[in-house]
Amino acid sequence: FAPSAQDPMWGYFTAIAGQDGEVDAEELQRCLTQTGVSGSYMPFSLETCRIMIAMLDRDYSGKMGFNEFKELFTALNGWKQNFVMVDRDNSGTVEPHELSQAIVSMGYRLSPQALSCIIKRFNRGGKIYFDDYVACCVKLRALTENFRRRDTMQQGAVSFQYDDFITCSMSI
Amino acid sequence: FAPSAQDPMWGYFTAIAGQDGEVDAEELQRCLTQTGVSGSYMPFSLETCRIMIAMLDRDYSGKMGFNEFKELFTALNGWKQNFVMVDRDNSGTVEPHELSQAIVSMGYRLSPQALSCIIKRFNRGGKIYFDDYVACCVKLRALTENFRRRDTMQQGAVSFQYDDFITCSMSI
Ligand SMILES: [Ca+2]
Ligand SMILES: [Ca+2]
Ligand SMILES: [Ca+2]
Repeated sequence: FAPSAQDPMWGYFTAIAGQDGEVDAEELQRCLTQTGVSGSYMPFSLETCRIMIAMLDRDYSGKMGFNEFKELFTALNGWKQNFVMVDRDNSGTVEPHELSQAIVSMGYRLSPQALSCIIKRFNRGGKIYFDDYVACCVKLRALTENFRRRDTMQQGAVSFQYDDFITCSMSI
Repeated sequence: FAPSAQDPMWGYFTAIAGQDGEVDAEELQRCLTQTGVSGSYMPFSLETCRIMIAMLDRDYSGKMGFNEFKELFTALNGWKQNFVMVDRDNSGTVEPHELSQAIVSMGYRLSPQALSCIIKRFNRGGKIYFDDYVACCVKLRALTENFRRRDTMQQGAVSFQYDDFITCSMSI
């Protein structure tokens, strides 16, 4: 037996992964829609699924193996708890000022202009849904990590070559 | 009469825009799905609609007025023609090597590593659909313009402050 064969999630994973034994963005979207992990929230967009896979995809295959798949479910539960806390008035959506507060309280130091760009990008009709909240947080974290990794002197400024800038900003 | 009232597209625009007189991403998605402007291709994702609006949205409202709306239809027709040319084997999708060639022939100078990151991000099952092709091209153009605007000495390198880097890469 492979060790994973004993894991209760293994059968579920193999059913979703199909023949190639890995989960891609479309398979993930179907699975999240079926399991109802997004609760009463809207089903996940393909875009958010891609961003989540990109975050965990250490071998850059664009797909998830079993361990990455389990990590994702743990992470999703974390975001769900976080979303419920950020949604202070319990409206089921995060409003612009709630998103700003959440980003600041996660420790990001961003100007009001940057925050307003982020809100503009991720709101629908003035509200941020769970799906987009996750996409926003994952993207912000990945971009910040990319930046910090290059900011070795911690000066808050990084000199990017064009090729590196495009790779960083197009891949997440 | 406002000058736009004479325009044959005006009635169409007002019907889509609704009460606020501007077209947001969800209204655009509905309209593109109904008009079948994507032809035999898949309907546009909300993500691609947002990227297209971000591209034309000069007043940063996240919505499109009438002139932006007309510009978008012109641009979409251009991309459609371009897509048909790039899809050399007429398969209805752009394959990874076709996308690489297209990006190079548009004048972007990117390393094989950067090209492969882009392909990984925008393919579905090894194919790039029209929807994602448009998202990819618009994003690449906007990011390149953002970079060049800062690269005043044309050295191929830009020093980004953290806040500016996040604004650039999160807003498109
Ligand atoms: Ca709320
Ligand atoms: Ca509207
Ligand atoms: Ca083709």
